[in-house]
Amino acid sequence: MQDALLALTKYWTDRGCLMVQPFNTEVGAGTMNPATILRVLGPEPWHVAYVEPSVRPDDARYGENPNRLQTHTQFQVILKPDPGDPQEIYLASLEALGIDIHAHDIRFVEDNWASPALGAWGLGWEVWLDGLEITQFTYFQQAGGQTLDPVSVEITYGIERIIMALQGVSHFKDIEYAPGISYGEAFGQAEYEMSRYYLDDADIEANRRLFDVYAAEAERMIAERLPVPAHVYVLKCSHTFNVLDARGAISTTERAKAFARMRGLAREVSSLWTARREELGHPLGLVPRAGLDDDDAEPLLPNLPAEMTAAAPLLFEIGTEEMPPHEVTNTVAAVRDAVATKLGATRLGHGSVDVVGTPRRIVVQVDAVEPREPDADRTVRGPRVEAAYDADGNPTKALLGFARGQGADVSELSTADFGGNQHVVVRVVDAGRGAVEVLSGLLAEVVTELRSEKNMRWSDPALSFTRPIRWLTALLGDTVVPVRVSALVSGRTTRVHRTAPEPVVTVPSAAGYLEFLAGHGIVADPAVRRAAVVSAASELAATVGGVVDTDAEAGLVDEITNLVEEPNALLGGFDTRYLELPEQILTTVMRKHQRYLPVRSADGALLPHFVAVANGSVEADLVRAGNEGVLRARYEDAAFFWRADLEVPLEQFKAGLTKLTFEEKLGSVAERAARIETIAADLAKGVELSTDDAAALERAAALAKFDLSSQMVVELSSLAGVMAREYAVRAGETPAVGQALFEMELPRSTADALPVSVPGAVLALADRFDLLMAMFALGAKPTGSSDPFGLRRAALGVVRILRETPALSGVTVDGGLAVAADRLRAQGIEVADSAVTAAREFVVARFAQQLRDEEVPADFVTAVLPGADAPGQAVATLAALRSRAGDEWFRALVAALQRINRIVPAGTAAAYDAAVLTEPAEQRLVEAVAALGDRSGRPVGEFADAAAALADPVNAFFDDILVMAEDPAVRSSRLGLLATIGAHSPRTVDWAALDTALG
Amino acid sequence: MQDALLALTKYWTDRGCLMVQPFNTEVGAGTMNPATILRVLGPEPWHVAYVEPSVRPDDARYGENPNRLQTHTQFQVILKPDPGDPQEIYLASLEALGIDIHAHDIRFVEDNWASPALGAWGLGWEVWLDGLEITQFTYFQQAGGQTLDPVSVEITYGIERIIMALQGVSHFKDIEYAPGISYGEAFGQAEYEMSRYYLDDADIEANRRLFDVYAAEAERMIAERLPVPAHVYVLKCSHTFNVLDARGAISTTERAKAFARMRGLAREVSSLWTARREELGHPLGLVPRAGLDDDDAEPLLPNLPAEMTAAAPLLFEIGTEEMPPHEVTNTVAAVRDAVATKLGATRLGHGSVDVVGTPRRIVVQVDAVEPREPDADRTVRGPRVEAAYDADGNPTKALLGFARGQGADVSELSTADFGGNQHVVVRVVDAGRGAVEVLSGLLAEVVTELRSEKNMRWSDPALSFTRPIRWLTALLGDTVVPVRVSALVSGRTTRVHRTAPEPVVTVPSAAGYLEFLAGHGIVADPAVRRAAVVSAASELAATVGGVVDTDAEAGLVDEITNLVEEPNALLGGFDTRYLELPEQILTTVMRKHQRYLPVRSADGALLPHFVAVANGSVEADLVRAGNEGVLRARYEDAAFFWRADLEVPLEQFKAGLTKLTFEEKLGSVAERAARIETIAADLAKGVELSTDDAAALERAAALAKFDLSSQMVVELSSLAGVMAREYAVRAGETPAVGQALFEMELPRSTADALPVSVPGAVLALADRFDLLMAMFALGAKPTGSSDPFGLRRAALGVVRILRETPALSGVTVDGGLAVAADRLRAQGIEVADSAVTAAREFVVARFAQQLRDEEVPADFVTAVLPGADAPGQAVATLAALRSRAGDEWFRALVAALQRINRIVPAGTAAAYDAAVLTEPAEQRLVEAVAALGDRSGRPVGEFADAAAALADPVNAFFDDILVMAEDPAVRSSRLGLLATIGAHSPRTVDWAALDTALG
Repeated sequence: MQDALLALTKYWTDRGCLMVQPFNTEVGAGTMNPATILRVLGPEPWHVAYVEPSVRPDDARYGENPNRLQTHTQFQVILKPDPGDPQEIYLASLEALGIDIHAHDIRFVEDNWASPALGAWGLGWEVWLDGLEITQFTYFQQAGGQTLDPVSVEITYGIERIIMALQGVSHFKDIEYAPGISYGEAFGQAEYEMSRYYLDDADIEANRRLFDVYAAEAERMIAERLPVPAHVYVLKCSHTFNVLDARGAISTTERAKAFARMRGLAREVSSLWTARREELGHPLGLVPRAGLDDDDAEPLLPNLPAEMTAAAPLLFEIGTEEMPPHEVTNTVAAVRDAVATKLGATRLGHGSVDVVGTPRRIVVQVDAVEPREPDADRTVRGPRVEAAYDADGNPTKALLGFARGQGADVSELSTADFGGNQHVVVRVVDAGRGAVEVLSGLLAEVVTELRSEKNMRWSDPALSFTRPIRWLTALLGDTVVPVRVSALVSGRTTRVHRTAPEPVVTVPSAAGYLEFLAGHGIVADPAVRRAAVVSAASELAATVGGVVDTDAEAGLVDEITNLVEEPNALLGGFDTRYLELPEQILTTVMRKHQRYLPVRSADGALLPHFVAVANGSVEADLVRAGNEGVLRARYEDAAFFWRADLEVPLEQFKAGLTKLTFEEKLGSVAERAARIETIAADLAKGVELSTDDAAALERAAALAKFDLSSQMVVELSSLAGVMAREYAVRAGETPAVGQALFEMELPRSTADALPVSVPGAVLALADRFDLLMAMFALGAKPTGSSDPFGLRRAALGVVRILRETPALSGVTVDGGLAVAADRLRAQGIEVADSAVTAAREFVVARFAQQLRDEEVPADFVTAVLPGADAPGQAVATLAALRSRAGDEWFRALVAALQRINRIVPAGTAAAYDAAVLTEPAEQRLVEAVAALGDRSGRPVGEFADAAAALADPVNAFFDDILVMAEDPAVRSSRLGLLATIGAHSPRTVDWAALDTALG
Repeated sequence: MQDALLALTKYWTDRGCLMVQPFNTEVGAGTMNPATILRVLGPEPWHVAYVEPSVRPDDARYGENPNRLQTHTQFQVILKPDPGDPQEIYLASLEALGIDIHAHDIRFVEDNWASPALGAWGLGWEVWLDGLEITQFTYFQQAGGQTLDPVSVEITYGIERIIMALQGVSHFKDIEYAPGISYGEAFGQAEYEMSRYYLDDADIEANRRLFDVYAAEAERMIAERLPVPAHVYVLKCSHTFNVLDARGAISTTERAKAFARMRGLAREVSSLWTARREELGHPLGLVPRAGLDDDDAEPLLPNLPAEMTAAAPLLFEIGTEEMPPHEVTNTVAAVRDAVATKLGATRLGHGSVDVVGTPRRIVVQVDAVEPREPDADRTVRGPRVEAAYDADGNPTKALLGFARGQGADVSELSTADFGGNQHVVVRVVDAGRGAVEVLSGLLAEVVTELRSEKNMRWSDPALSFTRPIRWLTALLGDTVVPVRVSALVSGRTTRVHRTAPEPVVTVPSAAGYLEFLAGHGIVADPAVRRAAVVSAASELAATVGGVVDTDAEAGLVDEITNLVEEPNALLGGFDTRYLELPEQILTTVMRKHQRYLPVRSADGALLPHFVAVANGSVEADLVRAGNEGVLRARYEDAAFFWRADLEVPLEQFKAGLTKLTFEEKLGSVAERAARIETIAADLAKGVELSTDDAAALERAAALAKFDLSSQMVVELSSLAGVMAREYAVRAGETPAVGQALFEMELPRSTADALPVSVPGAVLALADRFDLLMAMFALGAKPTGSSDPFGLRRAALGVVRILRETPALSGVTVDGGLAVAADRLRAQGIEVADSAVTAAREFVVARFAQQLRDEEVPADFVTAVLPGADAPGQAVATLAALRSRAGDEWFRALVAALQRINRIVPAGTAAAYDAAVLTEPAEQRLVEAVAALGDRSGRPVGEFADAAAALADPVNAFFDDILVMAEDPAVRSSRLGLLATIGAHSPRTVDWAALDTALG
């Protein structure tokens, strides 16, 4: 292992990195060392590499867990500025470590890093070696609340896991640290003893005092304008906080306070550092800014080539570093739109526009692009005729000016009519541009305008995208289309697999580009890649008598498809003894952590196999073994948690919730669970429950969320609910209680199942009402794509449950939110009435959206929204309306009702004096209304059927009677009669909207 | 610089060292890292190398001082066990750093390390590169109060200074840290800001609280039996203490308390670590113990060679690592004695025994060793004759047994008389042994019995000496004498310069060995080396018109002689601007720090030159430049201190003394200075002083010791007094005050000058009376060679001053100690009467020793000791006695007085009734006594001359008179008369001793 550290040090110092020492106070990560967190600030260059023993008290395991240490070893590299090819430099460093990058499957898998406490974030990847995360690779975008310019590349190697993989050992203690000495022999005692300190023996009061002293010293140093000692004390604060946390001594309030304090200090240190460096005149100089500061360094755009003479295909490739899988899909679509739209705005003739993509490239192909735009005539309006010629018929100055401006002779002018006015006009011919010229600008715009959900900066002075754009390939036929975007200039080369013998290759021609790429092992079309993944997975599974349910795993298959350029599926296996663990644990680990496809037998039982999809050609046995090792370690971890959790009584889990923060202002998860319990009890009052169900609900509510404090769920949060059921039943709870606890987390996604049991449904609703009401009370409404608390999902869950659970027909959105608001207020949290309204509207909007997604016409949706408070009934209403929509009588009725609505002023009392309504049409309507009776609370279908007879009398009434009679008593009674019809109609329908829908 | 760190790391890891990381809490030195201070404990092997940024708040200088940093970089190596050739391995590491060890002068200069706070010590060297200390090299002997077995070798490189020398820069900020980046650019801001924190801004109360919390956590972890976290907190304590110290916030009491606490903790951590490692079964295994655990590994003693046939010279060389210079001298003498004595105890004929030595070898040469011891006859006594034969004259069993035991036949027996008894005897011939056999055992004993003032252990399982013994060469003529001592076996090879092409060479023969060594550039005879140093120094000085006063520098020349095996003197120079500094500063730096000989002009003025003496052949220009650079840096430092000190008012220095600890229980130096001031005032009462002297004394006493808080004296403690004079006079004090402050430090050594001025002498006495009384009050009497407070020197100083300063004749040892005791008691320190007596006896013993050293016969010394309280008068008494020693009358007088002493019982009253003394002899004596009168307080000479007439009457009295008359009144008066003679004699003489002396 020490050889590895030396090899990395040598590799990076040979490439111009400064070597510094680990920091001499405890840090949680190399990032915290001032050599990173301060040096990434400001305009000075900084290339550094160092080892950092990173102390994480929370990871202390007495040295027993094979993969988890209270102090693990990071190797940290900062490249500031981004050298333009950091991935390639990094890959070579793996070779320096003795890793054969041609034989292994090395991948860059999306991983975005953020530390709100440091006011820092960045985008990048986990680097996978045969499925094992060995490195964090991040483009640092912000630190200390400052936007970084230049951006730094941060590369953090996890040394122990790299070495475990290289040495093929399964416990960190078995690493050969130096010849003849194992890691355990050398450091085992320290690992055990420091674990003891962090987990069991650290004095809580003493560490609290330390925290306060450190924070105060940090504040004083900030006041003295000394960022270096201030940062030292911030680090000491942070470590002490971590110690207290590992000791379980941090309450929710304390955590919030401590984080706020540390965050504030970190920000002040950062801005002070920046200011001090400026005062010191930036001792390390300034980073030259490519293409901006220095004109000589500006990449030149080649001259436009000679014009094309015949139609030719266009190839345009945007080469990137590995995009996140969903961004591949988004970007393919966005580029397709952009190219088509922009081409459409030109006069350039062309054939079909096809766009495909991989994680590293977006490939645009346009068929048969004409060599030129045709010329186009255009009429330009000049002055009015009367202003164009003087009394003598000679051109006025205005006319002469116009003609000169258009480059036309006065003799070429004519006149034309514009809205009745005669103007002088000139016919101008817009000369068509050559295809190359058109495309050169157009394609540059496409690149410049590229955006993703979350964008970053890199070495390029002007671009911003999901990941760095590193090259452009643009060919029209076999001619390069010169495209310049910021520092990028197009060419005729592309990049294939980084491990290829020639990673950069020349593209002969735009024609046949996908075949050209295929020749280099790259499957550019996602559909083709996906099909290859599906068929390979199925074939491999069949070799062990299993299947891969690629439909059920569609999302995962999509993701896998966009994680590789050349799918290379491998079948791996794991020890059958892990099959004793609950299946969800196993599949969750496979899917979420490893992107492996589970293999099942024909009857659906999990088999001890999986399909992993590597990128490109690798040594299959090596990569398989690596992936199997990773899975084994993860399963070993999971088994460790499983066994440990089974030792813990449920009440102790429940007590553990007090230490989990839900949200700063809203308190702990324990407080949230208590709210859910009481909300559920309240909701249950309106629900008919069997005795068993009532008991199950009560008990499950009392245990709500307990599994969030289990080690398994802390580690694999998506198993919340699943583990609750497993642990509850094993702890002796009834299956009904277990099921309710499981179901309260449903639905976890749009497509997920709903609770089946009533107790589960009640709990699920209570959970979501609390979440929604709590967040709206704080004003934390989702914006744009940001929905960190999953409120959209929660609202949709409410709607789906209420729609699909007949037993809960008595539960309404309003009612649920009101109960939730009461509970929050009881806890001392302010909930404005407007917040309740906003929450309701949010849920209703989701319902409406859902209906629209189900292709319900918008006016029908609007028509039933008054009843959206009870989505189940609203859906029934909708059905009733739509089933009658084709009936003439119904349409007549609706029209009649709408006619009434239009004439009756709001607030008109639904009362009339039948005695003054003496006209026959009046009397007829009075009788019809009386016959209908008050049906405002009845289902709409029943009302409609009953009210069918109302249409004629209403229409006759309007035909014969002047509602607005001069006699006030008469007028009042006539309006009152009509208002009574409205009042007797169901409130759950917007008749006006319905009228439009039917019209 | 980073390349150097990597080169060293690679060098040591290639040689089996583990690489670990710097510790992640602040440490003051690599030694504090648990990878050293804990791992050297116990029996496990441990080879480790690491970088350690070492934090010393006290060295913070805002980055301004060229050589001093609050964080400097150590490279630390631990080799456990000692590999047997660590110096050679170390030298190769310098080559790995790019240092040409053949061109440079690299030396191992005695430096012993001890940290009472860690309960740790070791012996070893500073390694000098052309006069620059670049490494500490220590054989660790104890840590945490535990004796280390096996011993570890600790090698600590000072990286910044090595790099400054290699890069030829004179300020650490100018070091090229990495290509294109200087140390200052990379770390200058941190150096400044952390200096600000340590010196100016650290919150004192906060750090006090931290210290207490840390110490309490350490205690708790010890109680939990977790030495690793306990050690972490001890380190945090230590760093916090250093911060407080740098902030000037540590009072004497606090320092004492804090040290005691840290020491206690460190010891407990160490013993706990040892116990825990044992419980863990020593995970790293056990160090094999050479020659003890494993018989196979035992070095074999070769068979004795064939016998010699003629006398031959003996060569015996004991090869060592570099001995301290004075141990070379001591060991040469000790070996000469041992060989001569042991040879004398054999019958082996031999010529002269010559022993010479260098730092690396003790060479014994014995002329003309005979091939064998002669045989020797011996008579062995058997049973008495009457028990030897039975009645029939047949041999008894006893006789037969005796004969058998002696291997003799009964017929060979004879008889002999023993004290009047006839015994059977047998004549036995002791066969002489061969020379080789005799020498083999004898020389082994010499080595086994080698001891020095301070002994150490190394890899050898049994030996103990000042430094490791690494080889034995033993030849009788050209035959190897096999000598085995523990793991060492003699051979016919020796080692010459380590940088020689062949560092190990074969010795052809014992004859001409010194010439053989000379042929390899080694001057084995110290006298020859010394002469070479003296003549080379003189010649070099002459080239710049100067001289080297090798007589005045005799001690330094001796030391230089024993720092090299082959003196190679070089003349160096320094910038004349440094001559503006006080000369003593310049010469002190040269002598104490660099062992350079100062060069002066004929009139004694210092010239800007020096003579350095390198070892063996080096590149002169390179080594000269190196030495000049070192001196320049040291002078630059001194000039920095000088300028800084001149800015400080004397009162501020004085105030600074409160922060300097004198001794834990005795308080600060300020308290000591205050005691000295009042003691001086008290002593002055008994001294006649001019007005000027009185004023000078008063002022100087008020300023006493102020310079101890100056930066210069903190750095160069031997300049105490010198700097007091310089700074006082420059601050406007009179020259007399300056002189008194200087003289109060005199004499600083046995040969040093005494105070000339009376104020200086009074202060010097006050200083020493306080020191002696204070230390005896604590029971801190010197033992054996240990005299850490220099009490012997102080006592001798008292004696010398009192002997040589007539103006102080009124001052006595008793009086001075009594005053000092009073002052200590006033400060609340307990001073037992027995302590005062012990102190007095200690001073008197030094006086007696001094007189004996002056070759005064012991009885004369004893004779004057009753007056030793006033050494000046005692010396006068001695002179008076010795001048009369040859006179018959004086001898008669003394004999008479002694006759009286013998007969008069102690306590007899000096009174008589003349009326009862009627005999003529009685009356004659009464008259003579009356004529003499009471001369007990007079000088002895006067008394003797006056008492000369007493001899006859006394003798007549004894002849004629029976003193013990039966009449009690008569008897009483006769005794009273004799007692009166005693009472009237001076008390300052021991007459009995004088009588012996004269007899």
